[in-house]
Amino acid sequence: MADVPENAPEHCPGTQSESAGKVSACQGCPNQNICASGLPQAPDPAVEEIKERMSSVKHKILVLSGKGGVGKSTFTAHLARGLARDENTQVAVLDIDICGPSIPRVMGLEGEQVHQSGSGWSPVYVEDNLSVMSVGFLLSSPDDAVIWRGPKKNGLIKQFLRDVDWGDTDYLIVDTPPGTSDEHLSIVQYLSCTNVDGAVLVTTPQEISLMDVRKEINFCQKVNLPILGVVENMSGFVCPKCKNESQIFPPTTGGAEKMADDLKIPFLGKLPLDPRIGKCCDEGTSFFEEVPDSPATQSYLSIISKLRKYCQKDGQTESSMDCS
Amino acid sequence: MADVPENAPEHCPGTQSESAGKVSACQGCPNQNICASGLPQAPDPAVEEIKERMSSVKHKILVLSGKGGVGKSTFTAHLARGLARDENTQVAVLDIDICGPSIPRVMGLEGEQVHQSGSGWSPVYVEDNLSVMSVGFLLSSPDDAVIWRGPKKNGLIKQFLRDVDWGDTDYLIVDTPPGTSDEHLSIVQYLSCTNVDGAVLVTTPQEISLMDVRKEINFCQKVNLPILGVVENMSGFVCPKCKNESQIFPPTTGGAEKMADDLKIPFLGKLPLDPRIGKCCDEGTSFFEEVPDSPATQSYLSIISKLRKYCQKDGQTESSMDCS
Repeated sequence: MADVPENAPEHCPGTQSESAGKVSACQGCPNQNICASGLPQAPDPAVEEIKERMSSVKHKILVLSGKGGVGKSTFTAHLARGLARDENTQVAVLDIDICGPSIPRVMGLEGEQVHQSGSGWSPVYVEDNLSVMSVGFLLSSPDDAVIWRGPKKNGLIKQFLRDVDWGDTDYLIVDTPPGTSDEHLSIVQYLSCTNVDGAVLVTTPQEISLMDVRKEINFCQKVNLPILGVVENMSGFVCPKCKNESQIFPPTTGGAEKMADDLKIPFLGKLPLDPRIGKCCDEGTSFFEEVPDSPATQSYLSIISKLRKYCQKDGQTESSMDCS
Repeated sequence: MADVPENAPEHCPGTQSESAGKVSACQGCPNQNICASGLPQAPDPAVEEIKERMSSVKHKILVLSGKGGVGKSTFTAHLARGLARDENTQVAVLDIDICGPSIPRVMGLEGEQVHQSGSGWSPVYVEDNLSVMSVGFLLSSPDDAVIWRGPKKNGLIKQFLRDVDWGDTDYLIVDTPPGTSDEHLSIVQYLSCTNVDGAVLVTTPQEISLMDVRKEINFCQKVNLPILGVVENMSGFVCPKCKNESQIFPPTTGGAEKMADDLKIPFLGKLPLDPRIGKCCDEGTSFFEEVPDSPATQSYLSIISKLRKYCQKDGQTESSMDCS
């Protein structure tokens, strides 16, 4: 994959392959001459610049899921808020869901703008130790659609990593869009030299969501991104009137725990479906502060504690991602 | 937007602009000479071929939403199954969610393969009058990730429209991924000369989803795609034990009906959150057949009837999309 340019024609043999510039698929490609010349392509200089910028960021966690709407942004926000409860821990959130940035709203930052300083773009601060960057801060209206094809999205992700003044940060949590396409390839590629701790996969219990998570696992394996574990979100709903628990998204094939078990991937925990979480996200308030004693808060804190332990134990080991 | 090629560098002035090939952003672009020459670019010949292929398809409806996980695929499947209850109506479903194709599972077609015939790729049939095409039918395992950047996804969408033997079809329902990026621009561009009826926007009641729908509305307006209406999915959950109704995704800002009203867009109806719908989707069975007398079935049929009436009334009017 790595040596097929993002703007390559459909049957591009890859710029580093022996047949580069020589096969029928290369006919008409504007880069045919460069490829046929056999000169090595220079690596994107941004990768080095990003490595430099990221040297002050200790841990990097990607939040992924195959499917949309399973709670990636909600989980990202809670993970960040949870880690930032320790005021000595500097936490940053990067939202690379370019076409559907939810993070500004969920973190209570709608309408905020990014400022430019001598050392780069300044992220927006929720608390002294919790900062956020999102395309949402660059739009003139929250209703504006960002109608961008891949290369433009990739360019902005590069800027977010290279040009934002992240400062000394303990945890950078990256919220991603659903799928396994441009944004995912770009973030993995740009962070390839920066020691990423790994990815947390979020899913709901039903098979239609697990299906897409299996694809995301396949993606992580293909790009050598470590999997920190799977979180099952929207696990069960307790009726506020009669306390009966219903499975709103029924785990017809055993849910995320069974899948994680089958695939030998750590299972981090289940988060119950509590409508107050959605309400806090809509209002941009902290669920942990609003409802500190709820079962959902307890589940969140237990998952966050597992992730913190993992990072502190293994965080210094270089990940096995290709640094090219 | 239209004259900036999808593989253009970040500050491309557009191939049709006066500065094409002449400004600093053009330095190093492989197409600089072509642009600077001022020769008009030939339109993609596929658009004409697609127009020809689509001449046997009467109505085309896109199912969009800004956010993932709000039920686009579920709605698409039910809309198709609902329309196909009339055995004289030929219905086809095209799934352009390339990285997360749910349609094969939801329609009970997992493991099916596409066949090649003299007149093109044959879609897979659920019933005699209900056919489906999805990238899911082209994968060797349902767990395989499709790790494709934009141009490759666009190429497959083009093939789906041009090379599939859709035959005489009354309704083609197109299921899309979340967002406003490559897939959305491509489907609109490729169908631009084929008289698309319009888009149905699916959302859940909470603000975080409505926010993304407003972006999708903005997208439809920018590309002149008519909006057939908004559907609110997962509207309320009735506890099976005590019959108390809970708002799982609380409409903190008034829900989809208020948004539609504010933006003067037709509101098509609310679909209650019934876990049996998710179960049918996981199992690939028809919810209408499994639970014909449920409130959700009644809501679905009412929405489908509105859409059918709209298409039969206005379907012959040419849409105002650019045919270029």
